[in-house]
Amino acid sequence: MKPERLAREVVYESQWVNLYKDTVKFPSGLIIEKFHLLDFPRSAITAVVENNNGDVVFVRVPRYASDTTEWELPAGGVKIGESEIDAAKREVLEETGYTSNNHELIYSYYPMNGSSNKVFHIVHCKAVDHVQDFDKDEVSETRWFTKSEIRQMIKDKIITDGFTLTALLLWLQK
Amino acid sequence: MKPERLAREVVYESQWVNLYKDTVKFPSGLIIEKFHLLDFPRSAITAVVENNNGDVVFVRVPRYASDTTEWELPAGGVKIGESEIDAAKREVLEETGYTSNNHELIYSYYPMNGSSNKVFHIVHCKAVDHVQDFDKDEVSETRWFTKSEIRQMIKDKIITDGFTLTALLLWLQK
Repeated sequence: MKPERLAREVVYESQWVNLYKDTVKFPSGLIIEKFHLLDFPRSAITAVVENNNGDVVFVRVPRYASDTTEWELPAGGVKIGESEIDAAKREVLEETGYTSNNHELIYSYYPMNGSSNKVFHIVHCKAVDHVQDFDKDEVSETRWFTKSEIRQMIKDKIITDGFTLTALLLWLQK
Repeated sequence: MKPERLAREVVYESQWVNLYKDTVKFPSGLIIEKFHLLDFPRSAITAVVENNNGDVVFVRVPRYASDTTEWELPAGGVKIGESEIDAAKREVLEETGYTSNNHELIYSYYPMNGSSNKVFHIVHCKAVDHVQDFDKDEVSETRWFTKSEIRQMIKDKIITDGFTLTALLLWLQK
């Protein structure tokens, strides 16, 4: 027994996000007349990139939506037709300048399943060589953090980016 | 140096979500002409509710956006003027039938800071008494899970709700 769509009003469609007002019948019989669904055509990835010391590379990202500029993991959208691993390789290279290997998709989840079908993928990998500068339009600095620094940042609640937080918590569980 | 809004086109506004197309100038000088911003007037809470055995109560929720029906933590929106703790108390009572105490706000984060300013709060508390039935429109079942069952669910990657996953990972770190 799943929720069933009875009708749809298109509010907005684009390559980035679609907004629909759907009439939805829930398993209990409840009908919601205007369920605001944020439909995302593309998923996103983040990467926990380790070096040989077990440190993890972070990127400093100015975020318009949350009005924050904090240390985050490299992340970005998965292009249509691109695999999650290839997207991770590409984003790591663009945002940190490192090539990477030993990629493993460690988790996939819905960050906001109450209103959105956006999917986030978490990839773990190893840094190989620093071959180019990072993209200055997306990132202002890069830095390696030790595992104990990362534990402390989480304890101090200073990582407010959910994608980074969730990926690091999973990595710490390993 | 933060991203700066140069112009705004209102696509849609409602009490649930606003969609804006903003022209944004980033610290590097880059200008994005149509930044799709999902502006949420209200934050949301989830609650890790423990009983005296250290088990955690889950609710089975039919999700329209992600087309999933899985075990999640009780969660919901924070009403305008309501505190995060009061919202947690209310949602726990509505979705599980339990009163609760010893509430502690353990983390706040942005689940999707690339496109949205939505804030998620995680509250930890203790179950007190079972005083009413749960809301059948929102929840189909409730169940207590042990800590080892929860670790296994995460290991098996079957918790796909990010809010639940992040809250439990933080709780396991405690």
